[in-house]
Amino acid sequence: MSDLTSEAAARDAADELRAKRAEFVLDDGTVYLDGNSLGALPRAVPARLADVVEREWGRLRIRSWDESAWWTAPERVGDRIGRLVGAAPGQVVAGDSTSVNVFKAVVAAVRCAADGRDEVLVDAATFPTDGYIAESAARMTGCRIRAVPAADLADAAGPRTAVVLVNHVDYRTGRLHDLPGTTAAVRAAGARVVWDLCHSAGALPVELDAHGVDFAVGCTYKYLNGGPGAPAFLYVRWDLQPRFDSPLPGWNSHADPFGMTAAYRPADGAVRGRVGTPEILSLLALDAALDVWDGVDLAAVRAKSLDLTDFFLRCVAAYAPGAVTPVTPAAHGERGSQVSLRTASGEGRGLMAELVRRGVVGDVRPPDILRFGFAPLYVGFADAERAARVLGEVVGA
Amino acid sequence: MSDLTSEAAARDAADELRAKRAEFVLDDGTVYLDGNSLGALPRAVPARLADVVEREWGRLRIRSWDESAWWTAPERVGDRIGRLVGAAPGQVVAGDSTSVNVFKAVVAAVRCAADGRDEVLVDAATFPTDGYIAESAARMTGCRIRAVPAADLADAAGPRTAVVLVNHVDYRTGRLHDLPGTTAAVRAAGARVVWDLCHSAGALPVELDAHGVDFAVGCTYKYLNGGPGAPAFLYVRWDLQPRFDSPLPGWNSHADPFGMTAAYRPADGAVRGRVGTPEILSLLALDAALDVWDGVDLAAVRAKSLDLTDFFLRCVAAYAPGAVTPVTPAAHGERGSQVSLRTASGEGRGLMAELVRRGVVGDVRPPDILRFGFAPLYVGFADAERAARVLGEVVGA
Repeated sequence: MSDLTSEAAARDAADELRAKRAEFVLDDGTVYLDGNSLGALPRAVPARLADVVEREWGRLRIRSWDESAWWTAPERVGDRIGRLVGAAPGQVVAGDSTSVNVFKAVVAAVRCAADGRDEVLVDAATFPTDGYIAESAARMTGCRIRAVPAADLADAAGPRTAVVLVNHVDYRTGRLHDLPGTTAAVRAAGARVVWDLCHSAGALPVELDAHGVDFAVGCTYKYLNGGPGAPAFLYVRWDLQPRFDSPLPGWNSHADPFGMTAAYRPADGAVRGRVGTPEILSLLALDAALDVWDGVDLAAVRAKSLDLTDFFLRCVAAYAPGAVTPVTPAAHGERGSQVSLRTASGEGRGLMAELVRRGVVGDVRPPDILRFGFAPLYVGFADAERAARVLGEVVGA
Repeated sequence: MSDLTSEAAARDAADELRAKRAEFVLDDGTVYLDGNSLGALPRAVPARLADVVEREWGRLRIRSWDESAWWTAPERVGDRIGRLVGAAPGQVVAGDSTSVNVFKAVVAAVRCAADGRDEVLVDAATFPTDGYIAESAARMTGCRIRAVPAADLADAAGPRTAVVLVNHVDYRTGRLHDLPGTTAAVRAAGARVVWDLCHSAGALPVELDAHGVDFAVGCTYKYLNGGPGAPAFLYVRWDLQPRFDSPLPGWNSHADPFGMTAAYRPADGAVRGRVGTPEILSLLALDAALDVWDGVDLAAVRAKSLDLTDFFLRCVAAYAPGAVTPVTPAAHGERGSQVSLRTASGEGRGLMAELVRRGVVGDVRPPDILRFGFAPLYVGFADAERAARVLGEVVGA
């Protein structure tokens, strides 16, 4: 047994989150390091979803909108997500896709801006959909859009800036951006900030309220394990809610949705971020999936995440020297919960296909970035060691 | 046995769609006449959804985007819906809510319009969300909005009209609007029409292609039985697709979504109507639910629907004379698949609560409209007779 193998075993034995792994469906033959793309299945989900389908839909049918509390699920699930991103109750609503929520947030943020502010700044390395949607939002609100590297956004926000849209963790490199500092600078410049938490929610403490974030969006199918395409979420800070002027004022956001009145009158609170009828099966699967977070301290999740990624980087250096170069920052304050490695060969797809064939599942951002996500609730140190070892075998080091 | 009871039995025995009822989860104690709000559970759904959750998500995880064809599900399911609304393959995509699809369709329709057309006409009795969303779309595209009774829209469309948004069946009264005539008149006026098919898809033949409809949206949780909040759909006629300029250009609508490029380049075809990652669990439950339509002829569905609603109206007249007045038109050409009754007392909620207590489930549009939906795949003539008889008992006729 190598030193790294025995170190992994010792660390797994000492891991205070270790018991959480049993709450997921996993197979020992696979090291699943793609939870940053699709989280593993929590064991509680199948039975809960079967009950939703067979009893709530099948037997109670229409009565479930009230009796099974379907109608209020977006806010209820939103509050559960809120706890995991540092938002007090009443500020988060679950529903729609991240793209749709980016649209709501950017348009609403522009509408909150003072006259003369007509510039939307976007993280230049953003996950593409944020950029596409922000461009549409800018076009539809008479703004111009400018792409700026995330690290420079704090300085770039000026007197013409209405809103800054930025990813908390870069999907490609795994770099963690400075949420407290950027938020403070953008607000000091008189603009609003929209954070995309897709790669940080459930991976590390976010603390939206504590840092005075204006708006945030995120998905729930990565570290939150909500299932394929699980509903996204929207955070609107409580004091901005009365001014939240949605570009998608669907009937679910009406103050009296069953009054069926011709005039739109928005509801108070997070409900204002709703649009149409929520996709209940996906939403309640997410609700069940969130049970794994009960009692979990995000600080412990973060500590394990950093230990795991540190250890993985050490193992990669030992097993595959020279074959790959980390593009994820070494500094803890700049790292999310994934490790991205650039291949020396410049090739990514074939290499990852071989890793997958050997039971190590990550993914590729072409042409040459291998991504490995470390979901601290179910990934262990032995997984990290094995993944690096197999990578070393595959690159022939 | 009364004449109506024996007539119902004879009609049920002769019903060519009768066997379909066994494909749904129903209980003999309940007459479910709320399928126009939430369709009953098709028996095929639970096992299929359990497989999606336990094997596709739980075991294959990320591989299912390809191996289980999750990625292409919106178009595949869209084509299945297309067959039921008279759309050739490649024009319908499933996903998002009806409200979000109304926004896409109205904005895109305005963007197709010739210069100088800046008016959006909306069915004055529309389901509220369509009106709210159309108002937002108008505001964001520099148009003004005008509400016009659906029957007058054909005449109202003029040289300033960009788009007309109209419901195929009025959600409150059950009135069927003239899709062929209104479409032809709106197009002749040089404008575009967007039909909302929420209350007609799966209830009667729609024939979008045959009538030259421009755009259509609809939900799938009513007569299509897709489950609570099941994904909605968007139809863009094939020749308009190259000009379909979506206000929600999310990455799923990109020509090369995994290229992750900063510049947006829209995909060809129905895919262009997609936005973000689809809610797969809800989408594949809908996919399974659509199996009940295999081999079903919409003309037979329509014939049975009219027979059922005719028969129900006769039974109501016999069992509850004077207690209610139909607001749904008697003329077949003006009737959807629901019957709305205005109560003589002016009260609706209490009356419906008592009906539900006695096993007859409809719903209320306050203050005084009782709605009874007749889903021809699983509602029979004995159901209609019983519902009317219990209504008669409740109103004390």
